[in-house]
Amino acid sequence: MSNPFFKNHGPLKISEIIKSLNINVAEAYKDKEIYDIKDLTSSEHNDITFFHSKKYKDVAKRTKASFCLTTNNLKYELPKNCFALVVENVLVSTSKITSLFYPDAINDGFDKTAKDISDTEFNIKVNFGQNVLIGDNVSIGENCKIGHNTIIEKNVTIGDNCSLGSNNIVRNTLIKNNVRILDNCVIGKHGFGFFPIKNNNLRYPHIGVVLIEDNCEIGCGTTIDRGSMSNTIIGKNTYLDNQIHVAHNVKIGENTIIAGQVGIAGSSIIGNNVKIGGQAGISGHLKIGNNVEIGGGSGVIKDVPDNTKVMGYPAKNIKEFLRNNK
Amino acid sequence: MSNPFFKNHGPLKISEIIKSLNINVAEAYKDKEIYDIKDLTSSEHNDITFFHSKKYKDVAKRTKASFCLTTNNLKYELPKNCFALVVENVLVSTSKITSLFYPDAINDGFDKTAKDISDTEFNIKVNFGQNVLIGDNVSIGENCKIGHNTIIEKNVTIGDNCSLGSNNIVRNTLIKNNVRILDNCVIGKHGFGFFPIKNNNLRYPHIGVVLIEDNCEIGCGTTIDRGSMSNTIIGKNTYLDNQIHVAHNVKIGENTIIAGQVGIAGSSIIGNNVKIGGQAGISGHLKIGNNVEIGGGSGVIKDVPDNTKVMGYPAKNIKEFLRNNK
Amino acid sequence: MSNPFFKNHGPLKISEIIKSLNINVAEAYKDKEIYDIKDLTSSEHNDITFFHSKKYKDVAKRTKASFCLTTNNLKYELPKNCFALVVENVLVSTSKITSLFYPDAINDGFDKTAKDISDTEFNIKVNFGQNVLIGDNVSIGENCKIGHNTIIEKNVTIGDNCSLGSNNIVRNTLIKNNVRILDNCVIGKHGFGFFPIKNNNLRYPHIGVVLIEDNCEIGCGTTIDRGSMSNTIIGKNTYLDNQIHVAHNVKIGENTIIAGQVGIAGSSIIGNNVKIGGQAGISGHLKIGNNVEIGGGSGVIKDVPDNTKVMGYPAKNIKEFLRNNK
Repeated sequence: MSNPFFKNHGPLKISEIIKSLNINVAEAYKDKEIYDIKDLTSSEHNDITFFHSKKYKDVAKRTKASFCLTTNNLKYELPKNCFALVVENVLVSTSKITSLFYPDAINDGFDKTAKDISDTEFNIKVNFGQNVLIGDNVSIGENCKIGHNTIIEKNVTIGDNCSLGSNNIVRNTLIKNNVRILDNCVIGKHGFGFFPIKNNNLRYPHIGVVLIEDNCEIGCGTTIDRGSMSNTIIGKNTYLDNQIHVAHNVKIGENTIIAGQVGIAGSSIIGNNVKIGGQAGISGHLKIGNNVEIGGGSGVIKDVPDNTKVMGYPAKNIKEFLRNNK
Repeated sequence: MSNPFFKNHGPLKISEIIKSLNINVAEAYKDKEIYDIKDLTSSEHNDITFFHSKKYKDVAKRTKASFCLTTNNLKYELPKNCFALVVENVLVSTSKITSLFYPDAINDGFDKTAKDISDTEFNIKVNFGQNVLIGDNVSIGENCKIGHNTIIEKNVTIGDNCSLGSNNIVRNTLIKNNVRILDNCVIGKHGFGFFPIKNNNLRYPHIGVVLIEDNCEIGCGTTIDRGSMSNTIIGKNTYLDNQIHVAHNVKIGENTIIAGQVGIAGSSIIGNNVKIGGQAGISGHLKIGNNVEIGGGSGVIKDVPDNTKVMGYPAKNIKEFLRNNK
Repeated sequence: MSNPFFKNHGPLKISEIIKSLNINVAEAYKDKEIYDIKDLTSSEHNDITFFHSKKYKDVAKRTKASFCLTTNNLKYELPKNCFALVVENVLVSTSKITSLFYPDAINDGFDKTAKDISDTEFNIKVNFGQNVLIGDNVSIGENCKIGHNTIIEKNVTIGDNCSLGSNNIVRNTLIKNNVRILDNCVIGKHGFGFFPIKNNNLRYPHIGVVLIEDNCEIGCGTTIDRGSMSNTIIGKNTYLDNQIHVAHNVKIGENTIIAGQVGIAGSSIIGNNVKIGGQAGISGHLKIGNNVEIGGGSGVIKDVPDNTKVMGYPAKNIKEFLRNNK
């Protein structure tokens, strides 16, 4: 997993791990130590993984993981090196196990480690306003400005020549060089991802980060959630206007321009040189190609190929939209 | 009225009350004391009420109020115990009289009583960040966290095991147990309710509160306005994502999930186990049933019955929406 | 230009000005001093102007400017008093020259001049909360309130009887009398205007202000950007609800009511007595007439004449919208 910030509490004994799942493993395995939880492809020997849908059958056959949360039907697809742990709900179980390895990534309380910047090493190096707070494990490059009341919580890396305005909250975020973040933004909080359970939903950990590449600008009141298993990425020289919401795991390309009040739902991928008009919404898990233009107010509910202009709700070819609405 | 927070400045003499309305009552009544202003149904003896539309004729006939703001046409419907005060505009007059009883509920200036939490009784009990302010008449349960720069203004009750993030502003709000409010939210401000009057609109008091039940989560940058005559309610285990707006008097049920940038206009009622996709909007005074799913980007302008999936603008049955938009 | 706040760094020698454009002028002109950059109409003798499209031919013929950035094709339209400076991209060149005259209007870093209000002349006059900051060149009238953590950055004028809530950030803004700004707003930041250039977009200066007229109310979490070459204006007794975005150069009339989460794109003009429903979006450079009603959720992509009701996306006559969507 790609997170440089969240402490992995492993190795954990498999006996500890399965305690929360109400299942058993053979006595011989019980003291075996597991180092991490990863997806089927990136798991190594001594990791645990999960396999919940037939469509991952081919990668499941080749996983290097030592254990795998799965179902009775799917377990026959796993290779010999991988011991199947059959559970009722694979994703809920995965969430529980991830929480054991990364307990700090579930709920985002405020950062108690944050203290006044005047009392930190950044006192001289950074040009800062009143009441700026800095948490643990923060690094800030040369020639940076941080405005009044802004809180750089723990686990933030800021490059050179960056300007953060006032009233921002940033955590679990990598900011490259020459980035401008205006005011009132919240960047790096966990996403809106959880399992709906009656009376008490189950949150799963978000162990990804937000990565903001060189020369980006982020407008006022914008929220960018960190990824759950992968990162949320804003590509080079991409500009976001005010009051935009970028959900967890979204990846936005380079030189892209996004106008005010746009919302991008979880895990969607936006290409390079894309222009998105104000208030447009993009559903989750979509792929928007390069050089795409999306008209203001559009609701995009399916993939958009490269070099296309779309508009409408649901968004369709812009010529068709305009012809239908003369 | 349901508000535990706003001080009722009554009893007021009826002569004082009618001064602002340019009307008269018989000399004999002038010193009569009025204790409160309520709707037709909940008024008691010695209260004043209001009656502005024929559709309330049946409840008007049975009101226990001693006085009633009404029109020349409607006054004949009132019972003998209730003295009619005929005015030109019943709702504007009602607003003026409510303002006499509840002058503190009209305009929300900042809370001057708020002081640093270190100087309050919560200094030890609460786990708090830098620059946290607490107003008068606040109570906070066991095991709560309050983040940096958050302002708990006057008239707030918080239960046990609650976590408030940073930069929030809360007032006139009841928060039950195990509630998480992330960052940058404004909760409990008066709603967008006023009488449009040329050059100088007339605001009426908002004497309701916001009630957030157990196990809720409220995302970053969300605004929840308090009710005008009733309360704004978020039911148990309901999760709101970032940048959502919940207007005054809205009631949301239990186990409901609302994605980013959704807006719910005043006085609408949302059922239990409802799922609302990102950027959807719900008009005012609607009733959305239980187990409803509303697609992202939808504009809902009429009631939605239980167990229905809708999408589109205006929202219709989702199958129809998808069929029409192949 | 209408900005009372940004310092004009002129006069500048024409030789300095053209250095950044890679062009030449006759030796005789090189020491000539230029006082300001303005549009074709408002330029005076010794100003520089710009002319980039045939549709401005008629005003170009009468400009009083001494120099004009233009193209090889258009230069013949200029009068004898005006010396043509032929450049590849007129608007980019205009941006560069404007930046020379107004270097402080390009990027909005936090205001380093802001200090605690207790240490300013407003200590006694203003009713203020905790941690209020005031920048240089601020004036505040009688009987004003400023809430906790609010930052009045440099270049703000506030009239009498105004109430600002908590966590606001205001700069480059003129606020008249009896204005209420609730919480978490950002007012007066530069707009989302720049030239897209691969790897490094070019921001142009925003030298307009935000002007908020008497008796307005601005809801929580609203952003109002200042103008680029003209001002952003909110007319008398106009009320904005929560989470609204008003882009640069927008002009809104009097007695207008705008519900939550509405977005108005750059340079659009909204009339008097207009009502806009929640989440409606208005494209840029449009003209919405007086007494217009725009239904909630609408997407307005063309001008709307006076006394019209529209709804839909794209917005059309409301009767037609309702008939098509029975």
